[in-house]
Amino acid sequence: MKPMNVGLLGLGTVGGGTLTVLRRNAAEITRRAGREIRVTMAAVRDLDKAKHYASAGLVLTDNPFAVVDNPDIDIVVEMMGGISPAKELILRAIENGKHVVTANKALIANHGTEIFAAAQKKGVMVAFEAAVGGGIPIIKAIREGLTANRIEWIAGIINGTTNFILTEMRDKGAGFDEMLKEAQRLGYAEADPTFDVEGVDAAHKLTIMSAIAFGIPMQFDRAYIEGITKLTGDDVKYAEQLGYRIKLLGITKRTAKGIELRVHPALIPARRLIANVDGAMNAILVKGDAVGATMYYGAGAGAEPTASSVVADLVDVTRMHTADPHNRVPHLAFQPDALSDEPILPMDEVRTAYYLRLRALDKPGVLADVTRILADLDISIDAMMQKEPHEGEEQVDIIMLTHQSMEKNINAAMAKIEALPAICGKIARIRVEQLGK
Amino acid sequence: MKPMNVGLLGLGTVGGGTLTVLRRNAAEITRRAGREIRVTMAAVRDLDKAKHYASAGLVLTDNPFAVVDNPDIDIVVEMMGGISPAKELILRAIENGKHVVTANKALIANHGTEIFAAAQKKGVMVAFEAAVGGGIPIIKAIREGLTANRIEWIAGIINGTTNFILTEMRDKGAGFDEMLKEAQRLGYAEADPTFDVEGVDAAHKLTIMSAIAFGIPMQFDRAYIEGITKLTGDDVKYAEQLGYRIKLLGITKRTAKGIELRVHPALIPARRLIANVDGAMNAILVKGDAVGATMYYGAGAGAEPTASSVVADLVDVTRMHTADPHNRVPHLAFQPDALSDEPILPMDEVRTAYYLRLRALDKPGVLADVTRILADLDISIDAMMQKEPHEGEEQVDIIMLTHQSMEKNINAAMAKIEALPAICGKIARIRVEQLGK
Repeated sequence: MKPMNVGLLGLGTVGGGTLTVLRRNAAEITRRAGREIRVTMAAVRDLDKAKHYASAGLVLTDNPFAVVDNPDIDIVVEMMGGISPAKELILRAIENGKHVVTANKALIANHGTEIFAAAQKKGVMVAFEAAVGGGIPIIKAIREGLTANRIEWIAGIINGTTNFILTEMRDKGAGFDEMLKEAQRLGYAEADPTFDVEGVDAAHKLTIMSAIAFGIPMQFDRAYIEGITKLTGDDVKYAEQLGYRIKLLGITKRTAKGIELRVHPALIPARRLIANVDGAMNAILVKGDAVGATMYYGAGAGAEPTASSVVADLVDVTRMHTADPHNRVPHLAFQPDALSDEPILPMDEVRTAYYLRLRALDKPGVLADVTRILADLDISIDAMMQKEPHEGEEQVDIIMLTHQSMEKNINAAMAKIEALPAICGKIARIRVEQLGK
Repeated sequence: MKPMNVGLLGLGTVGGGTLTVLRRNAAEITRRAGREIRVTMAAVRDLDKAKHYASAGLVLTDNPFAVVDNPDIDIVVEMMGGISPAKELILRAIENGKHVVTANKALIANHGTEIFAAAQKKGVMVAFEAAVGGGIPIIKAIREGLTANRIEWIAGIINGTTNFILTEMRDKGAGFDEMLKEAQRLGYAEADPTFDVEGVDAAHKLTIMSAIAFGIPMQFDRAYIEGITKLTGDDVKYAEQLGYRIKLLGITKRTAKGIELRVHPALIPARRLIANVDGAMNAILVKGDAVGATMYYGAGAGAEPTASSVVADLVDVTRMHTADPHNRVPHLAFQPDALSDEPILPMDEVRTAYYLRLRALDKPGVLADVTRILADLDISIDAMMQKEPHEGEEQVDIIMLTHQSMEKNINAAMAKIEALPAICGKIARIRVEQLGK
């Protein structure tokens, strides 16, 4: 059978990995796909730097539009990242009748709805397994493996950088800043780590999973996002003492009032399997009404793990490209005319449990004032511990775990508590997720 | 669009669960599949017992051949179990041009090659996600999600009954017989538990995964199978002391000399994620050369988890049934003309590490004799511990962990050691798997 011709946009880490995997495993991939998948053209930023990739059948260019306009290319793989010109290139490839594979989570989370509509119109596929969870086939699991289920919630460790930092903070008893520096030194964090440590990268991935789980449009701008930069070594230690681990979670959940879409650090019971996912690894828990809880674990980043997902998409497209478009797997898991308009629930309305750490002067009456404020706002306390003062200080740490409460009530309570004269500084507030039934 | 008409063979646990899930989530499933999937006919053993399932659109019959011969049925779902008449019914359904979904692991592991050849000839699909790992979409992950990879090995906890028993043995410090009785009382083990506790059920599932991972025919008869009935509470305890957990694993691995296909209890490091999969849950580790290690976790049995996989297959078939058969996902992951004839490696030739527990008279020279026998057979010792005699006994337990050795050398060594006058009874031998790189 005629080979599939692939054009790459970008030959950086993921692009290079994709080329390497396609070449190394060519025989095995052809045995699976039923025809050869070959990269015939690649757009690079610097032709000189990329010349070691050149081979008889591979044309290099520094003009990405030459790839998407090349009539011999069947599938365009976008691995440049960023919104522009990636978006223009993808839309042009679609317009030219080409299938698209992309690893660009920011683009899909922000402009996926528009891109899928254009693809739908032209009858081409846009595949994006590599956009979430690196090499873990999580998009396929949600979109095809769990189609029987009404998905109830998803909770994932979907950013390797932050999970590495949190694991090190726990193992070494160190603070965030110090472990961020170590992560940068070891190559787990970028020089500008903002997107990772502030939770933006995780929110992109969560937005995509939420859309395909619930059949809603991509709504990244509605996501609540809180990073790990304010976590202290003390919080990590206290959490351990209470039987919990702190992880940066992306959570999306269906509730009667709307869909939760939130990224933030969370305490999870240490005995849960996902609490034991350490280092730069990723894991995603998906709870369906029929299947119960399932979990998917693997490397969330890196050249070859990400390439694994890109190539899986290439094989899928190769297998399905002759199928009637109406019978293909829909981009958003649900048929385009069957999307839901369930709203995203504002963070204020979310109900969950909380870990609160107060620093207070060690004198009578403080606890009475604090518990009174909580009770007035309908917040009940599940557990409490008071720590001895740090050496040479007169302030004590009071740690409380609350039962489920509404976020806006916790916020109101925190403001009132912080205004008490005996309370020193800000309260540390971390959500608590049981991840059980 | 015209609905897909489904005929069920069997309305027991899984059949009833499938009907329940299809009815409860009908709206959601239709939104995904693009058309209604409805059960119009079901064959049951006892019409009277099943009458509560009857509804306007569902015809019940006690003749399963009436289902596979019904021209209005598009997909037949086989959930009777056993080889005959399930095999005849499936082949007749295929002959009649119907797609087939089955949860029958024994049938696929023993006769899959013949069934897929018949399906290939008629251009119909045979889907079997429910045959392995209950609700975990592991077949899809291996066959579609990891197509970029040369799979190196798979190791799975793929039998919930035995994992429940082993978890209880560890938690309660009890022996196998006692915990089997508890599992039976709680409904985790059947009255005749042979298939589960002797590893046969796991070997069926492993055979299927091995075939789709490596592109080889189903070869259940070549699998090495060892159950958990001989494990003692002492072994479980000693393993813990050495930093290991004992799990019943299905392992299939590609080696230069052939493909390993083996089910047996194994010590795995307690810090591995999969070592912490407890109770009746299942988890499968898949190692690919590009993606690295990935893991898939969920309920391995039960009415609705299994139904989740059956219905996912129904949606897949619904989406793909109009596609050109050449462009569908191949049954065995690889194109039928591209299967491999790599041989299954005989167990004697397998290399792994071992836990050996000897009971010996506590007198000088025993250890020297034992270690001499091991050294002569090229077996080197990684760790050793000698336990105090049990109260009132004069025999001591000696536990050894070996480095990687060949199985036939271990067997030869065990025979020689057991022949020593100071050695009492049989040696307990459990394989040790690191499950790392």
